Amino acid sequence: MKAADTSKYPRVVIIGGGFGGLEVAKALANKPVEVLMLDKHNYHTFQPLLYQVATGSLEAESIAFSLRKNFDNQKNFRFRMTEVTGINPEKHMVDTTTGEIPYDYLVIATGSTTNFFGNKDIEHNAMPMKSIPEALNLRYLVLQNLEEAELLKTKEEREPYLNFVLVGAGPTGVELAGALAELKNHILSKDYPELNRHEMKVYLADFLPKVLGPFSDEGSSAAKKFLERMGVEVMLKAKVESYDGSVITFEGGKSIRTKNVIWSAGVMGVIPDGIDKSLIEKGNRIRVDNVCRVAGYPNIFAIGDVAAMITPDTPKGHPGVAQVAIQMGKNVGKNIVRLINNEPTEPFKYFDKGSLATIGRNKAIADLGKLKFQGFFAWLIWMFVHLISLLGFRKKVVVFINWVGSYLSYNGGSRLIMRRYVKEAVPQEAEMLPHSD
Amino acid sequence: MKAADTSKYPRVVIIGGGFGGLEVAKALANKPVEVLMLDKHNYHTFQPLLYQVATGSLEAESIAFSLRKNFDNQKNFRFRMTEVTGINPEKHMVDTTTGEIPYDYLVIATGSTTNFFGNKDIEHNAMPMKSIPEALNLRYLVLQNLEEAELLKTKEEREPYLNFVLVGAGPTGVELAGALAELKNHILSKDYPELNRHEMKVYLADFLPKVLGPFSDEGSSAAKKFLERMGVEVMLKAKVESYDGSVITFEGGKSIRTKNVIWSAGVMGVIPDGIDKSLIEKGNRIRVDNVCRVAGYPNIFAIGDVAAMITPDTPKGHPGVAQVAIQMGKNVGKNIVRLINNEPTEPFKYFDKGSLATIGRNKAIADLGKLKFQGFFAWLIWMFVHLISLLGFRKKVVVFINWVGSYLSYNGGSRLIMRRYVKEAVPQEAEMLPHSD
Repeated sequence: MKAADTSKYPRVVIIGGGFGGLEVAKALANKPVEVLMLDKHNYHTFQPLLYQVATGSLEAESIAFSLRKNFDNQKNFRFRMTEVTGINPEKHMVDTTTGEIPYDYLVIATGSTTNFFGNKDIEHNAMPMKSIPEALNLRYLVLQNLEEAELLKTKEEREPYLNFVLVGAGPTGVELAGALAELKNHILSKDYPELNRHEMKVYLADFLPKVLGPFSDEGSSAAKKFLERMGVEVMLKAKVESYDGSVITFEGGKSIRTKNVIWSAGVMGVIPDGIDKSLIEKGNRIRVDNVCRVAGYPNIFAIGDVAAMITPDTPKGHPGVAQVAIQMGKNVGKNIVRLINNEPTEPFKYFDKGSLATIGRNKAIADLGKLKFQGFFAWLIWMFVHLISLLGFRKKVVVFINWVGSYLSYNGGSRLIMRRYVKEAVPQEAEMLPHSD
Repeated sequence: MKAADTSKYPRVVIIGGGFGGLEVAKALANKPVEVLMLDKHNYHTFQPLLYQVATGSLEAESIAFSLRKNFDNQKNFRFRMTEVTGINPEKHMVDTTTGEIPYDYLVIATGSTTNFFGNKDIEHNAMPMKSIPEALNLRYLVLQNLEEAELLKTKEEREPYLNFVLVGAGPTGVELAGALAELKNHILSKDYPELNRHEMKVYLADFLPKVLGPFSDEGSSAAKKFLERMGVEVMLKAKVESYDGSVITFEGGKSIRTKNVIWSAGVMGVIPDGIDKSLIEKGNRIRVDNVCRVAGYPNIFAIGDVAAMITPDTPKGHPGVAQVAIQMGKNVGKNIVRLINNEPTEPFKYFDKGSLATIGRNKAIADLGKLKFQGFFAWLIWMFVHLISLLGFRKKVVVFINWVGSYLSYNGGSRLIMRRYVKEAVPQEAEMLPHSD
């Protein structure tokens, strides 16, 4: 039960319930502040496992949890499901689709979205995978195209439905490629007995000369080897020229007929209106000082993917990973308390715990500082780290059971088409008119 | 792996993967037939627990399973995700949105849909709950209206968002009323600290003089007592006159301001075009003989909710419950094998195992022939029967864990708004144009 009247305390408004926003709110528990979190969804998404939702290995609910429920026991926490349209630093107000909200301290933790680099035909025809609705849409697309393929008479007609092209060979692209290869190798013949599994092809393309760009060369080349062994065609130094929904064309002329293009080749920060344009860095990130404060605004912070803390060590800001958001969130939460107590703030210092990526069962890549290894042991570490990260979120048991089941049977996941695939989850206009038909 | 070439065998086409259709397919395993199941969804829905999906206690995937995956090991089973538009008994063809499909034997197992009895404004404004997309929509509606209510300033403004009116006090209405009352009593104050839970009201209306119409009087009155103790206002002999989306009006003048009307007051069979109109009975069911054969069509069967087997004992046909569909499915599967072997068919005989309905934790109604009891023991039976029924479906462990978790904490379920509520799951036109935006 919540009873505390917190209205006499300074109000900290947090925009976004991602990894960073959560940590700010947690750091402010039992402190003399009123915490108000705003998010357009009422849930947090555990993004590192999103690709498993897309391939149907995990249900969406296993990697998402209610933001309200998560803070049931934090007395000074309030939540609003609303969309932020902008901020007004002069008036100390956040503008939302449900009205103005005043703040004393503001934390911008809005994260990032898919970057199509201005290519409209790709944006229109390719699938992004940065949110749960997008991952579900992708799942429905894959399953529906397999259903379609089974109805078609000739190999030529089936080809575009059975070619899967993943653009962007970062962790998301690599993990998705591995999961699709497993679908092909272990499930296709069982579920779709009339399809020849060799007709299904998985391509992973990147304009860089290696997969897993930020990883060590050792990790990258192991990942490539693992993928190729599973039947994935890895295309490096391959730059996409166009995609019209039927054919994807690369610079140099190579083209592939496909209905399935998944785009994970870049992200950009999501910045609410009202921030001085001169503060916006490459990748649409807000420039912040060494305590994540937005220059010129003493009571506004930005953290995680949307923040660019430019230092000699990080000339482009920190990498857009969960650990940065988490550590920045903790730092900002503590510094807000220090500011209220008139104590000096403590600068942010990133502790790099290393990188993990999984390619499939038994196969992962671990770059943990000087410790680099690949294969089964890396996969165990990957499993362990992700289960621990989900700890405290009550879904962990379900996730664990699903995983064990998947691992033993090679046939996990429920692969249900709950709704037909549509390019946009639900058209924006329809969302606003609940009773139209 | 499937390898058997079954094309030389007679083909049994089953329309619908519900309780009845599943049993027909299972009964034909390892028989000299080719089984082809058609369904517009690629999954089976365990309908008795649908109301728990609507209230967010169970995830959709816990009560649904892939039809393809379920028959992975049945060699003579094939599946098509397609919509049946009609049948052509002269040509022995089923017409579908993806082309004509020939059959030697046809089983119509299409089930039923919500019956609004021709009342268009109710159909337009009230929520049905017969399918997973509808149950999910209902969940999003409830959660969104709670979010809305929290933003509103006065009790009068909040009222329509916090009034829930369930029309139809059959098992679905009763179970849903109980689940909503539990949401009010155990969750509302935790998740929505700014709402006063006493402002939330649950009404259960029926034009009959009792709840759980087909149950014993003893069971009915116990159910009513349980509901009232939980704070549900039960309105009997209450006939709905109109609902415009804001106010529901009953005959006699009583009206309630509400954005949430859930309609479970009746069902009707779903009959494909092409069946002789003279064979259609009340409730849109197809008249069948004592082996579920459609009169005049020696190779067409109808089972479950869409069939009316009229006998002196069952003047309106059998009740529209899962057990009837299951038992008819088994009977038809066996009789098709007998027909192929030129053996005499065996008439269908319904074995009534009794009725169960649950009102909440610890509270259920059991009418098992002469054995009638209510309360905790009935609830244990209800739990046991539903878990056993889910047996063989791999999700049972997950269901069980969710249930145990819910029971211990009164705070189960993930309550996530994965998509905004829309009256229709996705507009029909949008479904057909995957790449429009």
